[in-house]
Amino acid sequence: MTKRLDTGKEWFNKVYGEGKADGLVEMQAGLAQDLARYGIEFNFGDIYSRPGLTLAQRELLSLASLVTIGGLEPQLQGHTRGAINAGCSPTEILETVIHTGFPQALNAIRVVTDALIAYGQEIPPALGPDED
Amino acid sequence: MTKRLDTGKEWFNKVYGEGKADGLVEMQAGLAQDLARYGIEFNFGDIYSRPGLTLAQRELLSLASLVTIGGLEPQLQGHTRGAINAGCSPTEILETVIHTGFPQALNAIRVVTDALIAYGQEIPPALGPDED
Amino acid sequence: MTKRLDTGKEWFNKVYGEGKADGLVEMQAGLAQDLARYGIEFNFGDIYSRPGLTLAQRELLSLASLVTIGGLEPQLQGHTRGAINAGCSPTEILETVIHTGFPQALNAIRVVTDALIAYGQEIPPALGPDED
Amino acid sequence: MTKRLDTGKEWFNKVYGEGKADGLVEMQAGLAQDLARYGIEFNFGDIYSRPGLTLAQRELLSLASLVTIGGLEPQLQGHTRGAINAGCSPTEILETVIHTGFPQALNAIRVVTDALIAYGQEIPPALGPDED
Amino acid sequence: MTKRLDTGKEWFNKVYGEGKADGLVEMQAGLAQDLARYGIEFNFGDIYSRPGLTLAQRELLSLASLVTIGGLEPQLQGHTRGAINAGCSPTEILETVIHTGFPQALNAIRVVTDALIAYGQEIPPALGPDED
Amino acid sequence: MTKRLDTGKEWFNKVYGEGKADGLVEMQAGLAQDLARYGIEFNFGDIYSRPGLTLAQRELLSLASLVTIGGLEPQLQGHTRGAINAGCSPTEILETVIHTGFPQALNAIRVVTDALIAYGQEIPPALGPDED
Repeated sequence: MTKRLDTGKEWFNKVYGEGKADGLVEMQAGLAQDLARYGIEFNFGDIYSRPGLTLAQRELLSLASLVTIGGLEPQLQGHTRGAINAGCSPTEILETVIHTGFPQALNAIRVVTDALIAYGQEIPPALGPDED
Repeated sequence: MTKRLDTGKEWFNKVYGEGKADGLVEMQAGLAQDLARYGIEFNFGDIYSRPGLTLAQRELLSLASLVTIGGLEPQLQGHTRGAINAGCSPTEILETVIHTGFPQALNAIRVVTDALIAYGQEIPPALGPDED
Repeated sequence: MTKRLDTGKEWFNKVYGEGKADGLVEMQAGLAQDLARYGIEFNFGDIYSRPGLTLAQRELLSLASLVTIGGLEPQLQGHTRGAINAGCSPTEILETVIHTGFPQALNAIRVVTDALIAYGQEIPPALGPDED
Repeated sequence: MTKRLDTGKEWFNKVYGEGKADGLVEMQAGLAQDLARYGIEFNFGDIYSRPGLTLAQRELLSLASLVTIGGLEPQLQGHTRGAINAGCSPTEILETVIHTGFPQALNAIRVVTDALIAYGQEIPPALGPDED
Repeated sequence: MTKRLDTGKEWFNKVYGEGKADGLVEMQAGLAQDLARYGIEFNFGDIYSRPGLTLAQRELLSLASLVTIGGLEPQLQGHTRGAINAGCSPTEILETVIHTGFPQALNAIRVVTDALIAYGQEIPPALGPDED
Repeated sequence: MTKRLDTGKEWFNKVYGEGKADGLVEMQAGLAQDLARYGIEFNFGDIYSRPGLTLAQRELLSLASLVTIGGLEPQLQGHTRGAINAGCSPTEILETVIHTGFPQALNAIRVVTDALIAYGQEIPPALGPDED
């Protein structure tokens, strides 16, 4: 096993939970396992392991990028859990989705809220409108 | 309640049907309700309420933008109903999808056709190819 | 010349001005002329010539789709002129951009406003914020 | 029937299998059949029938474009089958998805692998990491 | 002036520098000023002013979203400056672009690096490859 | 220097010309050089070097993906040259752009045609419309 794959699995598992990197590769059949491995080696072994941003910062950036692209619900659920594992609060996670904007955000926030509830998090109350 | 939220609910309900604005907010949990409220205040209270375009024009523009983005099926269904409520004909709605183009249009037109049928609309016949 | 190309040139020229369809093809070199011709045959000969929507409606839909995609400034300028030629008011054109949303709209509205000024149109005043 | 529709059906059926072009049109209701017909006339009658690229090359390009757009799973499944019908190997098809990149590729490769298995193809083994 | 516009200008100016909110509106002609105003009222008066994320966090999220969309160079330059004004380090800003990924990132990082240099920032050295 | 970087430079230079990989890194300042290096290591060292597709196939796929994304003119010019260097004919390159579709294709085909002319290629003539 290469050092990058090793480092990548370590960071992937910090985000998704113990043993999940091996699970991602095994979920794919044959040649497609190479793509899963690249995701671990490059996105996690090369990028997530860099200094300069905390893991919590990286998880919020990944959520912002996923909301902007739209769709990609499995990744959105995974990184919601990853953000919790990295120490982000539910408020930070939901504010990240609100910050990133329409119209993708309204679909994304349902996925993220459901994922937070599934991970046993309490959903912070709405701020409601300012009186003006 | 702010004047913008009030105006937004009025326009939202003109599009989606009586009581739907409150339903949108209640469908979300906690903090996510703020995002639903912004959708109503900004998209409907600020934008839909502007003069210069009719509600029917705005609904066709929203459909064109949704088809272009792709995905976003719940919004596509909602604005199909909204376009009917705003007085657009099934022909105008389907022609808007045809106008907006490939490859998203071919997936979108199924969603829109199914939504029109669900709302009790008769689907206009195909024009068929020109003889040439 | 095929009937579709003939019909397409007629509708293209209604949008962009007399003689512009031939100009579009001549602007391209060699094989790329086929792509320009397809644009005329398909987008204008097949789609724009359909009944069910007016030319003015189609121009606003094209603008909404272009703002949503982002970039594509030459097409945005062309369809701003096309919308004027189809009888849309500057207010309808600018409201279409405002309706279609952030962040692309803020870049697009500069292109559209500049194009309107270049075509000798007077820019309608801002509505300004509601007092509340 | 026009010559373009005739040519389009011939190429569409080479890609998707005998009789599928008529099936695509019949799957749509009323006016939406025109959009399906345009897909056959333009994409297959005009574009796929052009010389200069083999059908196998065109299928890989369509897959690359679909992976880049993201979503569009029905088209991704259809063109996976089309690529097999055009003589592409499972390796070429899966490498096309791997080549086209993250983050859409990881979702796309599941759809493509499942489609290959459904079409009775053997999935080539992963290359695995280089020892370094 | 509404309270939201007032709050929006305050936050906009924290990001872009004193007096810039009024400048954004004045840069637009007539009706387009309303769109600039909405950008200030909604994005800054409603969203940026929310608790739950620091201004520095919000600036990195805006950069991640802009890199993901691609193009939008004026906004990318503006939020690079905004991130500096919010107290982000050049390393955090550049790592945000690197985190957000290919192929848009390679174009974006030139815009961001040039903007950092223009704002008098020292560019941190590359980490270089791991020895392995 | 790592083996992946070494392999990546070799493939990058096969595409863009001798010495260009080092040039790409040197064009960037400081930290941004890491992103350029990742592009070489991952896109070329990991992906382009894989068996299963020829370099000529990979260049056409890269062009299809770039046309689909839109914008990204520097990459479009670079891969036009790369496709020529990999042995693709001008016809294959231009047909790839035509295959990939509207409205991005019409902007892209100008960039690609200009790049082909700049690289001393003769532009094949248009096929013109079928008589029907």
